[in-house]
Amino acid sequence: MSTPVNTSDDTPGNDGTTVEMSRRRVLGTLGAAGAGGLVVGAVSGAGIASAVSGESAPSAPALTTVGSTEVMFHGKHQAGITTPLQSRGHLIAFDLVPGAGRKEAAALLRRWSTTAGTLMEGKPANGADTDISLDAGPSSLTLTFGFGRTFFDRTGLTARRPAQLDPLPAFSSDVLDPKRSEGDLWVQIGADDALVAFHALRAVQKDAAGAARVRWQMNGFNRSAGATAKPMTARNLMGQVDGTNNPVPAQSSFDQRIFVPDGASGAQAWMAGGSYAVVRRIRMLLDDWEGLSRPEQEQVIGRRKSDGAPLSGGSETTPLDLNKLGADGKTVIPNNAHSRISAPAQNGGAAMLRRPFSYHDGIGADGTPDAGLLFIAWQADPLRGFVPVQRKLDRGDALSAFIRHETSGLFAAPGGPATGEYVGQRLLEA
Amino acid sequence: MSTPVNTSDDTPGNDGTTVEMSRRRVLGTLGAAGAGGLVVGAVSGAGIASAVSGESAPSAPALTTVGSTEVMFHGKHQAGITTPLQSRGHLIAFDLVPGAGRKEAAALLRRWSTTAGTLMEGKPANGADTDISLDAGPSSLTLTFGFGRTFFDRTGLTARRPAQLDPLPAFSSDVLDPKRSEGDLWVQIGADDALVAFHALRAVQKDAAGAARVRWQMNGFNRSAGATAKPMTARNLMGQVDGTNNPVPAQSSFDQRIFVPDGASGAQAWMAGGSYAVVRRIRMLLDDWEGLSRPEQEQVIGRRKSDGAPLSGGSETTPLDLNKLGADGKTVIPNNAHSRISAPAQNGGAAMLRRPFSYHDGIGADGTPDAGLLFIAWQADPLRGFVPVQRKLDRGDALSAFIRHETSGLFAAPGGPATGEYVGQRLLEA
Repeated sequence: MSTPVNTSDDTPGNDGTTVEMSRRRVLGTLGAAGAGGLVVGAVSGAGIASAVSGESAPSAPALTTVGSTEVMFHGKHQAGITTPLQSRGHLIAFDLVPGAGRKEAAALLRRWSTTAGTLMEGKPANGADTDISLDAGPSSLTLTFGFGRTFFDRTGLTARRPAQLDPLPAFSSDVLDPKRSEGDLWVQIGADDALVAFHALRAVQKDAAGAARVRWQMNGFNRSAGATAKPMTARNLMGQVDGTNNPVPAQSSFDQRIFVPDGASGAQAWMAGGSYAVVRRIRMLLDDWEGLSRPEQEQVIGRRKSDGAPLSGGSETTPLDLNKLGADGKTVIPNNAHSRISAPAQNGGAAMLRRPFSYHDGIGADGTPDAGLLFIAWQADPLRGFVPVQRKLDRGDALSAFIRHETSGLFAAPGGPATGEYVGQRLLEA
Repeated sequence: MSTPVNTSDDTPGNDGTTVEMSRRRVLGTLGAAGAGGLVVGAVSGAGIASAVSGESAPSAPALTTVGSTEVMFHGKHQAGITTPLQSRGHLIAFDLVPGAGRKEAAALLRRWSTTAGTLMEGKPANGADTDISLDAGPSSLTLTFGFGRTFFDRTGLTARRPAQLDPLPAFSSDVLDPKRSEGDLWVQIGADDALVAFHALRAVQKDAAGAARVRWQMNGFNRSAGATAKPMTARNLMGQVDGTNNPVPAQSSFDQRIFVPDGASGAQAWMAGGSYAVVRRIRMLLDDWEGLSRPEQEQVIGRRKSDGAPLSGGSETTPLDLNKLGADGKTVIPNNAHSRISAPAQNGGAAMLRRPFSYHDGIGADGTPDAGLLFIAWQADPLRGFVPVQRKLDRGDALSAFIRHETSGLFAAPGGPATGEYVGQRLLEA
């Protein structure tokens, strides 16, 4: 059994987010065990193949960091917020069943927390397990839990409903399906293996039996670890580099922007260390988008498609030069370019941590691809994150002709549980 | 940039199928370049993590064999038949548009072949590319093309329609949706990266414009390379080890069972080196299945869930002892157990190469998981592969209460193209 060791991060695209688990520590361990054993070198991508027909297959692979990486369930913040992008994701929202209240909700969150902690360690669920991920490592599995606005009235906790859960404003580009929006409870599942992710989804559903029923459920994906030659920010299904300007934990303002502070008081005292998730299923009108030439697409975004660099020059991480003029006397980055309008400098510094999955549900009823982005944005306050940015985009984003917001959800994800605690205990038992 | 090297196969579960590309040769190359650089050792799965909160993320990953592996387009057989299971798959069927005939079909297959050859090398499509996989390696991408029964009348090629494409018999467990069944043309796409697979899907659709329109399209997945600790056959969404008895290329009868022989004559002379694909979307009734205890599930299958070993003893690859009696005087492997009924020994040696993807399309209209298996079986003749086995299963398989065949397709996938040839040229230009 071989254990390939990757000296860099397993998951592409999530530049600058916290890794709950120390991959460096894993490497340190391996490095000590097998000193001199790391392969550090480059192989060019496509040129190494040759056709050998009829050769029988080598044996199946051994566990690599894809499978062995474990994200911790307990901690200051919940897992799945600053965790690097995973290659598979499930989103599922529940409503409490009639008759279920605070007590049943507390019992459910306790069950879910036990399940999350167990599965994230790569172990089978308590009681009858489905066995779907029996051979697999934890595979960076995370489960993240949130409360929707409607949860609080149903559980007699209206006084503890934070103002941050007030309904998002309507946007002109919204074509929202209420049946696939919002919900009393929300669970985000991510993993680097599809069976591990599905296993967790089934366990979460099983735990909910009798207390909550599924309101909606969506599936998503990101690139596989190791598929790209260079460290790259993620691409979306429009082919764009997406996520370049995400805040990174190294920034001093990161925690303040993304997490509710320790000193939070009043209705959101229980949210200390937590974060608010805005969840939007953003359909991409790919037939229309792909009808544009690449230069036309680049004008819509204001960045080069090849590497994500601003049209004003430099590389992917070069700041936009919003004032640079072209030979025609117009700004090089058009006034309605998506990257200009969404730039933090244009929105009073509003920032959110976007941590999406792409989705693709085949051909839609209209005959076009039912594909796009499961947009998930994390922030300490939606009124200082998603809302001002989306308001601005709503008024003049060139990209809006090619996307459609089909669903919307806003959820309060409390801080991570301490050892022995369950997620949401500070809300449900205070 | 580091290049982890895996001394074993990248893709789990496809025991014993041909690898078009020589991974061993890749390893040979790497071994020569970085002698002593292979990490060969074992790390136990879940025990190596520790929580380090607030650490910033390491840089994104470099290309690994997940991304660098290339499968050859040209060869005796098409790619995607004996290629190890890939982690992502798309199936798409087309019907020729009214007015399109043999000439237009030939031009389409020529475009598709150019696209397949280019994309499988990890290069962008000719003309306007969507850029979705711009940074990625080939990632084991395969495109496999087949012709459905209806193709032949529409192109004036009825005389060359093989009897092997005669309609499959009806089975009592069928609940087939004709709109998502069959089709003039079928393309199977597989890759170890979701964006690489989606990129190929869009390219295939674009090439079809004006000649063929989408009839149906489905998405699937398998486990990620490196997620499991041991070499393991794949598991399906029922949690079972699935694929144990697949024929393997090392068997002398393999080619004869799976591929049309070189000496084929008459209506299927053009099929030399080709194979017939039976494609069934098999919904799993997971709520019902998961309501059984593990011992009850094992009685249904006749194998242990933990490791796939027969209930008559041994390990996964131990032959079934169909006559072994238990203390109760009954056969240890029940008479209606799925593994007994589908055993080649029970079906006159009928064999097919099953190479499925799992699928999960969220919650179905009936409120239960719309999940199961995109069953794809390859054989030299469906009457000596799928049909006799399915007839037998249809009459008494204990598993049939937990599955539902929702769609069906039968496609003739011709042999692989020689250099300079396009797929199907021997049919379309003979």
